[in-house]
Amino acid sequence: MEPSSMIETFPNPHPRRDYLIEHRAGEFTSLCPKTGQPDFAKITIRYVASEACIELRSLKNYLQAYRDKGIFYEDVTNVILDDLLASCSPKWMEVKTRWTVRGGIHTVIRAEHGERPLRPGWGGGS
Amino acid sequence: MEPSSMIETFPNPHPRRDYLIEHRAGEFTSLCPKTGQPDFAKITIRYVASEACIELRSLKNYLQAYRDKGIFYEDVTNVILDDLLASCSPKWMEVKTRWTVRGGIHTVIRAEHGERPLRPGWGGGS
Amino acid sequence: MEPSSMIETFPNPHPRRDYLIEHRAGEFTSLCPKTGQPDFAKITIRYVASEACIELRSLKNYLQAYRDKGIFYEDVTNVILDDLLASCSPKWMEVKTRWTVRGGIHTVIRAEHGERPLRPGWGGGS
Amino acid sequence: MEPSSMIETFPNPHPRRDYLIEHRAGEFTSLCPKTGQPDFAKITIRYVASEACIELRSLKNYLQAYRDKGIFYEDVTNVILDDLLASCSPKWMEVKTRWTVRGGIHTVIRAEHGERPLRPGWGGGS
Amino acid sequence: MEPSSMIETFPNPHPRRDYLIEHRAGEFTSLCPKTGQPDFAKITIRYVASEACIELRSLKNYLQAYRDKGIFYEDVTNVILDDLLASCSPKWMEVKTRWTVRGGIHTVIRAEHGERPLRPGWGGGS
Amino acid sequence: MEPSSMIETFPNPHPRRDYLIEHRAGEFTSLCPKTGQPDFAKITIRYVASEACIELRSLKNYLQAYRDKGIFYEDVTNVILDDLLASCSPKWMEVKTRWTVRGGIHTVIRAEHGERPLRPGWGGGS
Amino acid sequence: MEPSSMIETFPNPHPRRDYLIEHRAGEFTSLCPKTGQPDFAKITIRYVASEACIELRSLKNYLQAYRDKGIFYEDVTNVILDDLLASCSPKWMEVKTRWTVRGGIHTVIRAEHGERPLRPGWGGGS
Amino acid sequence: MEPSSMIETFPNPHPRRDYLIEHRAGEFTSLCPKTGQPDFAKITIRYVASEACIELRSLKNYLQAYRDKGIFYEDVTNVILDDLLASCSPKWMEVKTRWTVRGGIHTVIRAEHGERPLRPGWGGGS
Amino acid sequence: MEPSSMIETFPNPHPRRDYLIEHRAGEFTSLCPKTGQPDFAKITIRYVASEACIELRSLKNYLQAYRDKGIFYEDVTNVILDDLLASCSPKWMEVKTRWTVRGGIHTVIRAEHGERPLRPGWGGGS
Amino acid sequence: MEPSSMIETFPNPHPRRDYLIEHRAGEFTSLCPKTGQPDFAKITIRYVASEACIELRSLKNYLQAYRDKGIFYEDVTNVILDDLLASCSPKWMEVKTRWTVRGGIHTVIRAEHGERPLRPGWGGGS
Repeated sequence: MEPSSMIETFPNPHPRRDYLIEHRAGEFTSLCPKTGQPDFAKITIRYVASEACIELRSLKNYLQAYRDKGIFYEDVTNVILDDLLASCSPKWMEVKTRWTVRGGIHTVIRAEHGERPLRPGWGGGS
Repeated sequence: MEPSSMIETFPNPHPRRDYLIEHRAGEFTSLCPKTGQPDFAKITIRYVASEACIELRSLKNYLQAYRDKGIFYEDVTNVILDDLLASCSPKWMEVKTRWTVRGGIHTVIRAEHGERPLRPGWGGGS
Repeated sequence: MEPSSMIETFPNPHPRRDYLIEHRAGEFTSLCPKTGQPDFAKITIRYVASEACIELRSLKNYLQAYRDKGIFYEDVTNVILDDLLASCSPKWMEVKTRWTVRGGIHTVIRAEHGERPLRPGWGGGS
Repeated sequence: MEPSSMIETFPNPHPRRDYLIEHRAGEFTSLCPKTGQPDFAKITIRYVASEACIELRSLKNYLQAYRDKGIFYEDVTNVILDDLLASCSPKWMEVKTRWTVRGGIHTVIRAEHGERPLRPGWGGGS
Repeated sequence: MEPSSMIETFPNPHPRRDYLIEHRAGEFTSLCPKTGQPDFAKITIRYVASEACIELRSLKNYLQAYRDKGIFYEDVTNVILDDLLASCSPKWMEVKTRWTVRGGIHTVIRAEHGERPLRPGWGGGS
Repeated sequence: MEPSSMIETFPNPHPRRDYLIEHRAGEFTSLCPKTGQPDFAKITIRYVASEACIELRSLKNYLQAYRDKGIFYEDVTNVILDDLLASCSPKWMEVKTRWTVRGGIHTVIRAEHGERPLRPGWGGGS
Repeated sequence: MEPSSMIETFPNPHPRRDYLIEHRAGEFTSLCPKTGQPDFAKITIRYVASEACIELRSLKNYLQAYRDKGIFYEDVTNVILDDLLASCSPKWMEVKTRWTVRGGIHTVIRAEHGERPLRPGWGGGS
Repeated sequence: MEPSSMIETFPNPHPRRDYLIEHRAGEFTSLCPKTGQPDFAKITIRYVASEACIELRSLKNYLQAYRDKGIFYEDVTNVILDDLLASCSPKWMEVKTRWTVRGGIHTVIRAEHGERPLRPGWGGGS
Repeated sequence: MEPSSMIETFPNPHPRRDYLIEHRAGEFTSLCPKTGQPDFAKITIRYVASEACIELRSLKNYLQAYRDKGIFYEDVTNVILDDLLASCSPKWMEVKTRWTVRGGIHTVIRAEHGERPLRPGWGGGS
Repeated sequence: MEPSSMIETFPNPHPRRDYLIEHRAGEFTSLCPKTGQPDFAKITIRYVASEACIELRSLKNYLQAYRDKGIFYEDVTNVILDDLLASCSPKWMEVKTRWTVRGGIHTVIRAEHGERPLRPGWGGGS
């Protein structure tokens, strides 16, 4: 099964108000496609829902499905964003991945889609 | 009694100046409507009062009234905002809920109403 | 003696440049007008002086004069701002009060007066 | 071999989306050109890739090549930016170097090139 | 010798790029002109150089020259800014002084000169 | 059902070695028996198992069973210790409860049973 | 009324087990007997009860009764210890007071009475 | 291949002095044997070598070998200790595992073998 | 005047109980006897008084008297201890000096006199 | 020149009192003897001097002399201890090295020589 098919949604309970939803998953792991070594990241997903919200348990399962996949930092960040966009068509969404140190270097990738809401603080993350 | 009826107000002592009021409640708990398990959150309420300010003790009681209610993260954040808007008709208000970890994922919801005041720092929270 | 009469000033030594002055007083205490119980706050005052700067020792004495006064959070924040405005007529001033936990709720009030200077970071506080 | 020739790139896997890549290297060391004494810095590189992304291992090797070079703080920050710009022609890039204390003074240098993307938070770094 | 004459400069090695230089000196001490008591501050200097950069050792010596001078917080912040402006004519410069607690009050002064560069994060300091 | 009957155990997988097990539950809530108001605590349980270990899910359920009970800080700490002792007969056990602020006062209770193991650091908690 | 008469107790609910009770009051204020200036402290009380435990609300009231008393740091620490000892005759008790900065100096006083229980960590405080 | 066979050693370069070696691995993951869900831990290994020291890269590979194994917290902590003891026969060794939150509960397991060296601080970890 | 003659004392208000007094002075500065450059330290003084306690304002003045003295780290720590011992003959006293970074090295000196009281935590400092 | 010959000493100014000297060097770097890659560590040296104290500038130079040496973590910690022991014959000395992350693992080595002084806190480091 493709990971993207694992994401379930539920109807946005307050669709007439633009509000911000943020999920931070601290336990992401995938594999380096070159070395096969495990990579570890903290992932932050922020979005303004349109009609559908992401169901939390399915999000956990979706992220766990990368455990045995070989994929680069830059790629997986964009693929997660694409999969989540496809699943719930939000008004705006951002995915940020923060990776543990490799070769003394700590890497962070940040991708987003849609017109960023103008509310200050919404795009800054934490 | 509906929770919304529990919120009391007092007259804004300085109605001619727009100023920011922020209340952070660290001890919020409600129930997951699917599993019946308790949820725990820290809630931040920020607003610019119009004619009325929210009375602190009634706010505490209002938030405690969720202890036995089953309600989703996204929903309760918006319902609290709606109830508080109804109680004091502020010029602007924001409700932010930060939930403890479930399935390795930490969730934050942030909803607001009204024209955000232009003062920098007022919408950023802390 | 009215507290407002306690504030002394000295001539701004560099009146031709707009610069930011910030005083943080960690030891403010007043009384709750309803219960008579003591309240405790940290107070931050930020301003751009016009002709006069606030003398530090008189500011300390002024803030101490609230020790036996019963006054609400929202009120005292605005009254301090009004008194300081009257004492030194700054180009811009902000007063922020951060109160200790009552009923599990931590409160912050933030009031300002005058055209906020455009320099980024000046209004954000710390 | 010139350090600049050490930087390798790989094709940007998502060239149609502008996204942010950040690398933080905590173990940079070079030499003071005046005294020959070692200098130590933490270096943060942030960029929006165009066609090419910087390969992480080659970045590590490139930064290590300064270990025996005598070069001033202000200079090395700009030279690293120039070398990285030459290697991958990003849409925007920023290099920040934070140096350990010398003579009781801690120094930070920050240089960037290209039109900074408008997304809030992208230029602020951490 | 006047302190201002102690500041030495060197030619900006990358004059065609506007970049940010920040020096934080943690060990500043002067005297209170009223009481003769020592004052202690941390000083942050941030600037965009034009033709000249401030030489670090001379900056250390310049700041040490205040050890026996009686001067007020507001004054010394502006005087340091004026002296540094005179020494290197930067495109933009900011001086921030953070003083230890006196009478339970912690004071911060922040002065700047020139057109602040538009890059986000450059004026915020840390 | 009595809370104490909710605790399940499983056989200690390494009964011949004395080792330390620590569980920290951040989401405990009970009621004040005098006022009926909710109390909130973080609970740390540390023990050296004999034949049986505490099953984690049943511990969660056991602690949740206090949600509607009125019981004092000092009492509930000792009752939890008694219940856990009865369930798994450890060689040594300590229960520490840390309560949120009430009336400006933060309370911690710490009870233990059995001969404390001599290993340094085992009793210090975190 | 003497402050010492304000402390109420309740019967120790588990008198057969020696366990540790700790109360941290963050909002203590008294007056300097020499200058009349307010002093501020955080107070930690740790004890092993015998027959009686200190009632929390009366402890709050007792500590508030120092608001208008002039008393030195060293003295008030010992007097609080004496009053609490008299009120509940604990097996062991420690009072620690941590005062805000005066003249650039931060002071901590720590007094105890009775045979300190041998459990590691019990006397270390936090 | 059994994980235990993966650990390589090298001769202790200073066998006549008892000194402490500590390795902290932040990226450990295994599976819950009941649910198949991934578990995540930080692992600290501290030992006083006898004739052999643990080779760092083989330790990394050994810990990675748990990625697809189902094993309980209490068990894996003791098994890692047993495997490392078998590989290098240290004078003393301690293994501490700190697991991420499950059901609102954070768990730490700590096992050791051999006569703990008397040096203070050696057993306390960090 | 010799610095040691500046220290004043007052009678210990509770001479029959051994209790701990700690003063932390964050603003100490002296001169390097070799280079004449200023040195900066934080100084912690901990003692158990016998008949006399150190008066706080005189302690501040005593420490300020080192502002123009050239003296090494190791020496000044012991001299301060000797001077304070001479002034108040405590049962036990410890002086700890923590110096700012010089040549990339941060130095701490710790000297004490008298039989250290057996109470745990008293000698550890903070 | 052998590194050990670089360490200079000066006479202990207070040889009749046992006191603790601690130097923390944050900028140590050596090379991995297997890969030639640079290693980075923070080094803490703690000792009780006998007749001689270590001169700070020579210590800095001695530690810098490892910049181009290939040496393992366990080895260099003991060699530094041996060299410093030879240079000043202290009553007791401890060397602690804390290395940056390699392969996701952070390593700390701690070696000491001589009878550890009984004063609590002296061996614990910070």
